Amino acid sequence: MDCDVIIIGGGPAGLTASIYAARAGKKVLLFEGNRVGGTMAKLKKIANYPGSISENGEELSARMFSQALSFGVTLVSEFVLKIVRSGDGFTVTSGEKTYHAKYVVYCGGIARKSLPAEKQFSGSGVSYCAVCDGAFFKGKDVAVIGDGEAAVFDVKYLLGLCKTVYFIHSYGEKVDGAVDVSGSVEAFVGEGTLSGVKVGGEVIPVEGAFVAMGASADSLIKGLALSDGLIVADGCKTNIDGFFVAGDCIKGSMRQIVSACYEGALAASLCK
Amino acid sequence: MDCDVIIIGGGPAGLTASIYAARAGKKVLLFEGNRVGGTMAKLKKIANYPGSISENGEELSARMFSQALSFGVTLVSEFVLKIVRSGDGFTVTSGEKTYHAKYVVYCGGIARKSLPAEKQFSGSGVSYCAVCDGAFFKGKDVAVIGDGEAAVFDVKYLLGLCKTVYFIHSYGEKVDGAVDVSGSVEAFVGEGTLSGVKVGGEVIPVEGAFVAMGASADSLIKGLALSDGLIVADGCKTNIDGFFVAGDCIKGSMRQIVSACYEGALAASLCK
Repeated sequence: MDCDVIIIGGGPAGLTASIYAARAGKKVLLFEGNRVGGTMAKLKKIANYPGSISENGEELSARMFSQALSFGVTLVSEFVLKIVRSGDGFTVTSGEKTYHAKYVVYCGGIARKSLPAEKQFSGSGVSYCAVCDGAFFKGKDVAVIGDGEAAVFDVKYLLGLCKTVYFIHSYGEKVDGAVDVSGSVEAFVGEGTLSGVKVGGEVIPVEGAFVAMGASADSLIKGLALSDGLIVADGCKTNIDGFFVAGDCIKGSMRQIVSACYEGALAASLCK
Repeated sequence: MDCDVIIIGGGPAGLTASIYAARAGKKVLLFEGNRVGGTMAKLKKIANYPGSISENGEELSARMFSQALSFGVTLVSEFVLKIVRSGDGFTVTSGEKTYHAKYVVYCGGIARKSLPAEKQFSGSGVSYCAVCDGAFFKGKDVAVIGDGEAAVFDVKYLLGLCKTVYFIHSYGEKVDGAVDVSGSVEAFVGEGTLSGVKVGGEVIPVEGAFVAMGASADSLIKGLALSDGLIVADGCKTNIDGFFVAGDCIKGSMRQIVSACYEGALAASLCK
């Protein structure tokens, strides 16, 4: 056994799981192949993480990471390729190396499909979270792009805040109070900051565009129960004993920094 | 209707509920008759709130409070005496004034029984949270005082960290690995910091004492479902429509700052 707990993913869920597991006396390896902080590290402004005022994601990520290091967590800067049940624990493979642990806490986040020019306006008009960023667009015109429950949730949330909410989607959903636009987004337009989204050759003038097009989690272990590409969990317990999950990849997660942190703490508390 | 949401209790749960409800465009009154920050404000050192490094509870409370104010939350420095269902909302009475809101988020925390000299050593050896403070007593001798599930949980958690764990209780519970002490604590002893607990006239030398004697929530509204003095909730939903709960007063809550914050955010998201 190389360690007690292997935590995969260094966003807020993984960092908090690391902090809690290490403070409980566990030997912890934290795997993050990219930048520590995950999606959070890319945020230009964080307004709703309690206690964090006018701070960017890089600063908050750095603070959570130093905190984890101060409790003895070891960072492994490698991508995990495979997880296999073995003995009374798990074998985790990254490149040519393998590691063994009694518990795995998976906090790998989600992957999203991307639209033309979307990345360019990320944080300058394009958002993935109405609850996080809606308040920045109070009284303004915005669009929600996507189908399904998550998109409808965003439309309803933004109707309580914004002047006009355009709901751009392909299915038959309609939400009272929103302007229904059938079609798909061809481009995000603007100079520096977003000024509109292009649908059917026409530009709809909006300052904010909320992308809710669905996302999926990586499934690195055989037999893990998924639904709509996300991991099915009861709290943080998956259908595999000793394999816990925290953060955005949980089906039904609130997808907030504070919920990811809570889920990380909860998952760590299950590694006894 | 004086406001959309009345939040009762200004600890981390209430502050986060305020932040989330206000950012969703709701008019929010936050009631706190004592110091804003609640129990958190009294903590001398917070080690496990993600992103908060070597900070005390007063600083973190002040930051969360300014954040809430910046989003337009109004603090009402009054004690709530009674809550009554009225029309499609609730009437909240504090002293001679009454307020009306569509939703109530109750974050009133818990009251605990107190032992002789206990308060004197709070934060200097006496703790109420093994998960929060256990790591400060790594390799040391500690005692857990109390009966029931919560006490047993603390004993097990501390066995993974501490040299000797004395389990001082009145019922018949025993935990493998802990030193079983039957009886009740007569006093906490020490000069400045804790050096022992007195049971049956004898002093057991410990540097840390974890009090897990049970706690109860105030029940200000008729018909609220309680269990062991705590509020029964499914997530943050109580048995009363529109009356939500967050924080330590929820039966089964993790009782961490991060869980209180998460519960506050979740409760706010239910106030639609």
